[in-house]
Amino acid sequence: MRKLKVNNNEVAFYAMGGLGEIGKNMYCVQFQDEIIVIDCGVLFPEDELLGVDYVIQDYSYLVENQEKIKAIVITHGHEDHIGGLPFFLQQVNAPIYSGPFALSLIKGKLEEKHLLRNADLHEVNEDTVLKFKKLSVSFFRTTHSIPDTLGIAVHTPQGTIIQTGDFKFDLTPVGGLPAPNLQKMAKLGDDGVLLLTSDSTNAERPEFTKSEQWVDTHIRRIFEKIKGRIIFASFASNVYRLREASDAAIKQGRKIAVFGRSMENAIGAGQELGYLNIPEDYLIDPNDINSYPPEKVLIMCTGSQGEPMAALSRIANGTHRQITIQPGDTVVFSSNPIPGNTVSVNQLINKLDEAGATVIHGYVNNIHTSGHGGQIDEEFMLRLMKPKYFAPVHGEYRMQKIHTKLAEMTGVPLENSFILANGDVLALTKDSARVADHVEAGDVYIDGRDVGDSVGNPEIRERRLLSEEGVVTAIAVIDLKNHQIVAGPDIVSRGFVYMHESQDLIKAANHEVFWAILNTFKNRKKIDERILNRTIVSRLQKLLYAQTGRRPVIIPMVTILNGDQKHEEPKKNKQSKPKTDKNVEKEDVK
Amino acid sequence: MRKLKVNNNEVAFYAMGGLGEIGKNMYCVQFQDEIIVIDCGVLFPEDELLGVDYVIQDYSYLVENQEKIKAIVITHGHEDHIGGLPFFLQQVNAPIYSGPFALSLIKGKLEEKHLLRNADLHEVNEDTVLKFKKLSVSFFRTTHSIPDTLGIAVHTPQGTIIQTGDFKFDLTPVGGLPAPNLQKMAKLGDDGVLLLTSDSTNAERPEFTKSEQWVDTHIRRIFEKIKGRIIFASFASNVYRLREASDAAIKQGRKIAVFGRSMENAIGAGQELGYLNIPEDYLIDPNDINSYPPEKVLIMCTGSQGEPMAALSRIANGTHRQITIQPGDTVVFSSNPIPGNTVSVNQLINKLDEAGATVIHGYVNNIHTSGHGGQIDEEFMLRLMKPKYFAPVHGEYRMQKIHTKLAEMTGVPLENSFILANGDVLALTKDSARVADHVEAGDVYIDGRDVGDSVGNPEIRERRLLSEEGVVTAIAVIDLKNHQIVAGPDIVSRGFVYMHESQDLIKAANHEVFWAILNTFKNRKKIDERILNRTIVSRLQKLLYAQTGRRPVIIPMVTILNGDQKHEEPKKNKQSKPKTDKNVEKEDVK
Repeated sequence: MRKLKVNNNEVAFYAMGGLGEIGKNMYCVQFQDEIIVIDCGVLFPEDELLGVDYVIQDYSYLVENQEKIKAIVITHGHEDHIGGLPFFLQQVNAPIYSGPFALSLIKGKLEEKHLLRNADLHEVNEDTVLKFKKLSVSFFRTTHSIPDTLGIAVHTPQGTIIQTGDFKFDLTPVGGLPAPNLQKMAKLGDDGVLLLTSDSTNAERPEFTKSEQWVDTHIRRIFEKIKGRIIFASFASNVYRLREASDAAIKQGRKIAVFGRSMENAIGAGQELGYLNIPEDYLIDPNDINSYPPEKVLIMCTGSQGEPMAALSRIANGTHRQITIQPGDTVVFSSNPIPGNTVSVNQLINKLDEAGATVIHGYVNNIHTSGHGGQIDEEFMLRLMKPKYFAPVHGEYRMQKIHTKLAEMTGVPLENSFILANGDVLALTKDSARVADHVEAGDVYIDGRDVGDSVGNPEIRERRLLSEEGVVTAIAVIDLKNHQIVAGPDIVSRGFVYMHESQDLIKAANHEVFWAILNTFKNRKKIDERILNRTIVSRLQKLLYAQTGRRPVIIPMVTILNGDQKHEEPKKNKQSKPKTDKNVEKEDVK
Repeated sequence: MRKLKVNNNEVAFYAMGGLGEIGKNMYCVQFQDEIIVIDCGVLFPEDELLGVDYVIQDYSYLVENQEKIKAIVITHGHEDHIGGLPFFLQQVNAPIYSGPFALSLIKGKLEEKHLLRNADLHEVNEDTVLKFKKLSVSFFRTTHSIPDTLGIAVHTPQGTIIQTGDFKFDLTPVGGLPAPNLQKMAKLGDDGVLLLTSDSTNAERPEFTKSEQWVDTHIRRIFEKIKGRIIFASFASNVYRLREASDAAIKQGRKIAVFGRSMENAIGAGQELGYLNIPEDYLIDPNDINSYPPEKVLIMCTGSQGEPMAALSRIANGTHRQITIQPGDTVVFSSNPIPGNTVSVNQLINKLDEAGATVIHGYVNNIHTSGHGGQIDEEFMLRLMKPKYFAPVHGEYRMQKIHTKLAEMTGVPLENSFILANGDVLALTKDSARVADHVEAGDVYIDGRDVGDSVGNPEIRERRLLSEEGVVTAIAVIDLKNHQIVAGPDIVSRGFVYMHESQDLIKAANHEVFWAILNTFKNRKKIDERILNRTIVSRLQKLLYAQTGRRPVIIPMVTILNGDQKHEEPKKNKQSKPKTDKNVEKEDVK
């Protein structure tokens, strides 16, 4: 069983996913034999990963150490925070603690996979305190684009570790829904926060993210001007948005028809939990929409991201059973396309336009706002929590990096901030923090059915990558006994054009490898070649992606002169026969 | 001696100035025989008040009740918060408590008037607690465009009353200066706030006010591009701005010459208190500026508002002893003209331009940000304090009104918000609030030397007003015994065009008078005709100004049928022989 290389008095923070990426969030706090897991999400792969439906975490470390897992606590019900639970629960048995809205979504997921009966589910709210032998967990209310969003505080013998979850400071949520609990956050800050791990999604936006109240105002204004039918498309889970649209519709006397399963579920849960307030006689049967005059109809549907099978795409294609676009229809996209979906959303808009509908969309019309706080929100969180140490999470490398600058401007010295990668283990005492270890935390590809069916063909992917992106090799010879670099590091690349052109980039890459080795010397008495190689790969990947936007295959080739270190075969990933990306790179070294 | 008409268990909040206007702030909290006075500022009159240098408060009530005044606490050192002290202290003897920067400015002021020797001055910081028999006062650190800004909490037997002072949430102040103490504010909110009285200056701006850090970045960038001399003009009291300019200059090796007395004072105090960090050898004698090459000189001077006698105006006019504009000079206005000064600032810019200087100014170049929080800042304050009752202060009526809407959106029911006018007495218990009385709180005009010299000629002013704005008369006959309105209210106007054109406005005016009378019935057993007339004038003034932007002369003519009420002559204003505007209106009734 893999054990963390941390001292017995140190508390560890590490992520199986969510660092250097947006998606598959899974953060862990471990002290001795107690682990608290925070969230378990999926990542929706980019188009290039054909045949892959989800990417999940390589959490083999947690599977091996599962008897230590005291709780899986959930911040909120988005897919990138709960979507991985049906996979994880097939391998790990641990109680889940979640707010009511996420819990209802989790139940649905587990039901589908016939996992609900054996699941150990607990509803929590911000007043809940979970007490274990050495660790305890408390919650604080935040706001995001889905109701019941919680931040998590894990209280450890060395101090409190905060995981904010996804958040923005929505000071004026719609429908009287609760605002962020500033008092509780300030109290945590006053009592002392050892480590803050905070949402970095919008760290590049120099703004305070607008409230849903602002969207509400504009949705009302837009609805008031529309005489015909309104087809309203948004994320089903953004119940605030559903509230805004339904409130505006009811004010106009429009009946509401709901299309798309996730939208039906969200409206059901929203009504049940009191986040929505639609009188029963306003919800009409989808088959009856044509018996109402157009100005008395609101159609709420899924598919705002151009998903081909969702209601809106079928409406646009003319293949929907109940709805055909008719002159006078207005389609309102209360969302912005996620970067990867821009093309399909544009195609969808064109089709709707051709079919005769008026299309209103996005930020331009003030009918969308982000669920993630911008720089001002992030600074408020930092000032409220006043952490000693800081680790930006939930973001790509460049966002994490900017977030550490915000931390510096709000009083956290740069040397107390850690830009971690998935698997990096941050070991903390009340007055020290260091990256002490690195556990498995690669990508696992899923074809949508089950973990057992995880997709293979990494070889094909690798060849494609090689052909498209080239290869970068880092070479070094180190003397283990004397902690010296005997030769190198040298960087050699083939087929990776950017490196041929830039001496600066080669220098920077060299620098990364140099520090990866030096940190390894510093942190451990015994050098683990696997960890060193992984660190080199991860550092170079980040650098090259940040500088060139490319992901060449990276091959670390470190020769260790001292024979103490046994070259062991990398442990096979228990859950996925095909190797993850990093395994591939690792094996190339051999 | 005038006594407040409040119950013995009620705590009273009222303002001598600062409500319905921006300027001459002076807020009071009174419980039984203890009064805490917060700030004592002046108002700079609009151009139309020729011959008037300052407007101060008619604080005859406080003069009469001066033995009750336990403390004058100061939020910060701007003129509209401390400028009235030299006048007030000539009539009232009370200890002053202030943060260090404001204190050094107050000392200068009192010294000038030979009042320093007898003044009872105390330096406080945010940890100070002042304890009196029934009331106590604590402080919390905020940020504004001057250092050492404090919010005030007056703890009363009925609950805590907060006066925010002027504030914005600058989360990233320059030079490592302290940020707002969110924890302390949240703690006050958690412990329970009875009444929040909060800065409304920027209630019309739907934004989070930008940090000084942002200005700092842009000042640096602009300085880096300038090859010749830099002449930097800003408010002397904005020590943050002086810090940004001096830091940027030092980075370029520019020596710094200071012109203008208030700038010299501010830099002296800033250096002494550690807010500025200019090495001694960087501060040069103004006479020596020509012995340095242009690219090594920064001139810091007063006059950013186009004040005719300030250094910058004299430089522009070519009448400055040491500085003449030369080709290559760049003048940086790190300020925005205050509304009344737009014309003079534009003239100044033209002159500088003609003289051959490059002029960089204002928001356009990102070298200015407001010291007052926008709507987002105000919402944060509301969410942090979670008050039961709310009274927007430091703003004109329309700003106060918008601020109550923000309060409503952040959880304070509209009926718990009070848009008070100067002199209105809000009486509170822990679960009630009502406007219970109205004390004298008119305008007193000062010619710049002393209170004794207060300017006369209100008759001339009145005739001018009558000729320009017209007159509005409100007529009603009331039966005091039966609490009934026997005739009216009727509104008659002459020379006030807006009213002729709008039945709606007449209706609204009628409504205001109606409610003024009804509230008087409700609140008091014995009707005080003076108060009723004052209330009518104040309500109509607000309405008419909000709707038309005009201030006609208002004459309330209420006939009281029951003879119980003695028509007493209005008490002469102790401190000003000439009558205030309101006195004039009052006398017209007779």
